[in-house]
Amino acid sequence: MDSKVKSGAKWKFKAKDSVKKASGCTIRSILTTINANIKADESRGIIRLGHGDPSAFPSFRTTSVAEDAVVDAVRSAKFNSYNPGTGILQARRSIAEYLSHDVQLEISPDDVYVTAGAKQAIDVIITVLSRPGANILFPRPGYPMYAARATFSELDFRYFNLLPEQAWEVDLDNLEAVADDNTVAMVLINPGNPCGNVYRYDHLKLIAETARKLGILVIADEAYGHLAFGKNPFVPMRVFGEIAPIVTLGSLSKRWMVPGWALGWMSISDPNGILLEHGIIDCIKNYLNIVSDPSSLIQAATSQILKQTPDEFYSRALNLFREAADICYDKLSEIPCITCPYKPEGSMFLMVELDLSLLEDIKDDMEFCIKLAREEATILLPGSCLGLKNWLRVTFAAEFSSLVDGLERIKDFCLRHSKRQ
Amino acid sequence: MDSKVKSGAKWKFKAKDSVKKASGCTIRSILTTINANIKADESRGIIRLGHGDPSAFPSFRTTSVAEDAVVDAVRSAKFNSYNPGTGILQARRSIAEYLSHDVQLEISPDDVYVTAGAKQAIDVIITVLSRPGANILFPRPGYPMYAARATFSELDFRYFNLLPEQAWEVDLDNLEAVADDNTVAMVLINPGNPCGNVYRYDHLKLIAETARKLGILVIADEAYGHLAFGKNPFVPMRVFGEIAPIVTLGSLSKRWMVPGWALGWMSISDPNGILLEHGIIDCIKNYLNIVSDPSSLIQAATSQILKQTPDEFYSRALNLFREAADICYDKLSEIPCITCPYKPEGSMFLMVELDLSLLEDIKDDMEFCIKLAREEATILLPGSCLGLKNWLRVTFAAEFSSLVDGLERIKDFCLRHSKRQ
Repeated sequence: MDSKVKSGAKWKFKAKDSVKKASGCTIRSILTTINANIKADESRGIIRLGHGDPSAFPSFRTTSVAEDAVVDAVRSAKFNSYNPGTGILQARRSIAEYLSHDVQLEISPDDVYVTAGAKQAIDVIITVLSRPGANILFPRPGYPMYAARATFSELDFRYFNLLPEQAWEVDLDNLEAVADDNTVAMVLINPGNPCGNVYRYDHLKLIAETARKLGILVIADEAYGHLAFGKNPFVPMRVFGEIAPIVTLGSLSKRWMVPGWALGWMSISDPNGILLEHGIIDCIKNYLNIVSDPSSLIQAATSQILKQTPDEFYSRALNLFREAADICYDKLSEIPCITCPYKPEGSMFLMVELDLSLLEDIKDDMEFCIKLAREEATILLPGSCLGLKNWLRVTFAAEFSSLVDGLERIKDFCLRHSKRQ
Repeated sequence: MDSKVKSGAKWKFKAKDSVKKASGCTIRSILTTINANIKADESRGIIRLGHGDPSAFPSFRTTSVAEDAVVDAVRSAKFNSYNPGTGILQARRSIAEYLSHDVQLEISPDDVYVTAGAKQAIDVIITVLSRPGANILFPRPGYPMYAARATFSELDFRYFNLLPEQAWEVDLDNLEAVADDNTVAMVLINPGNPCGNVYRYDHLKLIAETARKLGILVIADEAYGHLAFGKNPFVPMRVFGEIAPIVTLGSLSKRWMVPGWALGWMSISDPNGILLEHGIIDCIKNYLNIVSDPSSLIQAATSQILKQTPDEFYSRALNLFREAADICYDKLSEIPCITCPYKPEGSMFLMVELDLSLLEDIKDDMEFCIKLAREEATILLPGSCLGLKNWLRVTFAAEFSSLVDGLERIKDFCLRHSKRQ
């Protein structure tokens, strides 16, 4: 019914422009589109290898320490109140200790801010840097929430390449070439989402030196921090804080497999006080005053979780991821139209390239994923939403039985769509 | 150390402009400033009557149903995963039922969005409406997070007056006078923060009709929904959704005394589909894709909380608030320089006007609050940050013993600062 005719009123509100475009980039948005293609009468279970969330699988249940910590927090009745925008001090302190622990580099609680997941930490840092004319550099392939946020905040962005033939390392020449006088920061994701790589110390140091040369800060997305099960140990970027200011983003979501809990952090490694001098620190604190707060109960539980999770939980999870990565890599190697240039050694994903010339009726990665959802009730993420068209991101962090089934279905699908010779 | 000299690097990042100004408006920011004046060697307990959060007081502990609900959610291990941006369906459904219950007006779960507290709901609606040239109307006195968000989003805003001599009702002539062709929405807070009023049905209807005449939507902030203990029953604004589109904001924070949990909602009452037609609904959903999510555990607990909280919990809380409001109003009446034009019948606050002519060395409300903090370790909120200079907002939602002590200290302070006749 036409609202003007019915009511006689002329309604004057309209929706903000940049939101739709920003939202369209997100993984959630793309997966919603793909999921819509699952047949209504699909009798088999849906196998979800498109997102980084194994928490639904029994083998990937979080530690009872985390569960107990939340229960203790709620039963204490001491954590129901409003808190400072920067987070509960006890949580900041415990995150600082946790981060300091692995590299014996003291981090002050004052340099730690609690956020509602790493997602909010991305919101904060992108927002704080959004000035007209500025631009930021994102890795390709990468994590689309950065582009979504930058689009919303009208911060220009450009991509630098990761090199599949070089363990997905940063193409440093390309990085320098795409930067200009208005570039303010770069994002680095390590362990890598979507590539499953773990960067070497020397490479990270070169990146820090390049950032310094360019006069930019490094946003070190370490959401998958410590999820490194291959030959390269995980090196936190903050060890290079003397070379260039490092803003590290992290959360409980991946290592503890609780992405829904939405508890993350931003930590600053900037012993030269450059970010403070440039007003970035104050801006972060001010912005944290006006955004929503992480739930007080999960903040309160953080200390117990970070201090008391047994090593056995961490090592068991790593072993599961390592084995799942092997299964995934090996199985995908059997599929002619799929090539994985680098066997993952971290995070929960690997990237594979599609050889469309071997397939019939599949024009691109999005169509591949849509048809796979429809025909095989299996979900993968098209690489084009991550910056690499005709690639796919495959999650290996799943119950082995589901993973194996999913890979079989992918294999069947590819066979069925193979071009006849 | 000068970062340029030391590093030789020229750092190119700068902080976003609108953030500092936006943050400066917030209650949290103002209270931080006031709190900084508490003497370092203050031996008495600090009495906090500046914020709307009684959760620290034993009498205002939330219901065990809420605590049990969170424990059940975490122990089930079923709610650790990512969720849709609009919220867990079960939570949306239970909020819809809860909202439908009191007015027998069916609300669909599709018209409910779960947010990280009402604070995030404010973020969402202000953001969605922020277009260059548009403006929005806020009540004066009101809740400064609206202005903070509008400032950040560069959405112009103007104020309409509430009339202290008329039970803080909206000055409808003034509302129409400040609106113009670019006005898109108005905010109405009921039960009233900071005034403690509860609007009559007829008045709310007139407001809806005025909104329709102006072609604007109504943002009905019902954070204090059901906290009405006087002669006027609480009437949810959504009953007028046929007259003008109503966007209602609510949360668990106040009625259940858990503001730290950060679980809120936005519900749409717009049977004529006007918001949908104008792209507002899609914009809300898209924006919810890119902001942080409310913690999954609290979302999961919501259903149990809304359905199983016993009536006795609600009525006991109301009785406490009613009695506290009486104590507060009566005690303040004894203080010559303080006038309360309207005895509160809802929410957790009342507004009082200062007669500075009766005081020595106090030039305005901010100075009053700063000196009160310093001399009496008692915190009130200056009315100037709510739009009414030389008024004060007093929270009555506190343990009676603290409330009485605080009011005594305020009385002593005023006596001590009285002008000698």
